[in-house]
Amino acid sequence: RSYSSRTAMTEGLFFRQLLELESMTYTYLLADTATKEAVIIDPVLETINRDLKLIGELGLNLKVAVNTHCHADHITSTGLMKKGLAGLKSAISKYSGASADILLSEGDKIPFGKHCLTVRETPGHTDGCLTLVMEDQSMAFTGDALLIRGCGRTDFQQGCSKRLYNSVHQKIFTLPDQCLVYPAHDYLGQTVSTVGEERKFNPRLTKSIDQFVDIMKNLNLPKPAKIDIAVPANLVCGLHEV
Amino acid sequence: RSYSSRTAMTEGLFFRQLLELESMTYTYLLADTATKEAVIIDPVLETINRDLKLIGELGLNLKVAVNTHCHADHITSTGLMKKGLAGLKSAISKYSGASADILLSEGDKIPFGKHCLTVRETPGHTDGCLTLVMEDQSMAFTGDALLIRGCGRTDFQQGCSKRLYNSVHQKIFTLPDQCLVYPAHDYLGQTVSTVGEERKFNPRLTKSIDQFVDIMKNLNLPKPAKIDIAVPANLVCGLHEV
Ligand SMILES: [Fe+2]
Ligand SMILES: [Fe+2]
Repeated sequence: RSYSSRTAMTEGLFFRQLLELESMTYTYLLADTATKEAVIIDPVLETINRDLKLIGELGLNLKVAVNTHCHADHITSTGLMKKGLAGLKSAISKYSGASADILLSEGDKIPFGKHCLTVRETPGHTDGCLTLVMEDQSMAFTGDALLIRGCGRTDFQQGCSKRLYNSVHQKIFTLPDQCLVYPAHDYLGQTVSTVGEERKFNPRLTKSIDQFVDIMKNLNLPKPAKIDIAVPANLVCGLHEV
Repeated sequence: RSYSSRTAMTEGLFFRQLLELESMTYTYLLADTATKEAVIIDPVLETINRDLKLIGELGLNLKVAVNTHCHADHITSTGLMKKGLAGLKSAISKYSGASADILLSEGDKIPFGKHCLTVRETPGHTDGCLTLVMEDQSMAFTGDALLIRGCGRTDFQQGCSKRLYNSVHQKIFTLPDQCLVYPAHDYLGQTVSTVGEERKFNPRLTKSIDQFVDIMKNLNLPKPAKIDIAVPANLVCGLHEV
């Protein structure tokens, strides 16, 4: 049944969800339990010490810090992490406009030990939004494209609701029902969802494309408090005027 | 390796972690994916509508709402949930001093479908603190006995640091290294730990019992803001003067 999932069970995978409380951003740490090679997704400047401490305790070898897109609500810790961890590479979409060691596009793989994440381009919230999918399709890191019972806004940063609708339907809703959906944010204390649940219960994305465009046009959200400092900083891995 | 866990993989288990943001309380929803029988752990009054909505969407049949102890920092939604969900029973430790449909003690089982949680008494934060362990020891819900790199305070509500130290060492640290530790609270955005990690990295509980008592004596924490309304309310499933 689509909405009766359990947690992911990929063999030999370490997985940890972490939350930054000011921007309500989820950071994800994944590692191969045998080789200790690790990837971090959407790390936040405010929680860099917590995250580095955990990586150190676990003895992980962090290979890649990847951002699902150029965030407007918080500054990434990617650049600062690179200063402390030799060999760490930054990664972001080639359509983000941001600089990074690795510029990702559709189908690219981010390997860590015997595991890998595969890139699906899911633009619409921004031009450079990526969804990262585990090799066994047990988990998808959807950034701000698909949120739990919601989705990212489309009223700035190249936002386009038609594009977002098509991205979610073509690139995320085509994953298996039981695939866990791990977004970049949640503001209601929900930690995870599944593709099956969102396909059935997402109040926006279950609508027709025209209704969706209409809903997104009428959200009337305030401008994110940090956008004017976060976006320029995130275009250079968080190291703008640091 | 003790600190190289992955997420739980109990067959036929639905599992969802939820967070209440004011008190930073974690609520856990578990269900048998075949029979839909479900248990909720530590539900909070503020998030009752979110939780009931999810239970409804998933078509779950909530059998038991269990509190790991009589909380001092938030009011439980157990009593109010019972008013809305026919057949739902409340459960809490017989040593909590609180009233409930089911009074739990060491070794008691809370079955839901083919799964069950087993009660371990872990007093010390309060007299009636319980840890709930999944049948395959893949997950332990530790309440305020063991927190991630921390533990519950012992300076009120029958608190006793010696008792807490022994509870954690005898009843939680004896679980397998890879057993996931899901606490009632976390204030740093950490969502989960493992027994192996806490046995190795918990800054308080890796110390000797005398050092632990000393640490707990010198925390100098402020009194919880809600204690004078939360404790009397939680003694009657959250329905005090409602
Ligand atoms: Fe965003
Ligand atoms: Fe407590």
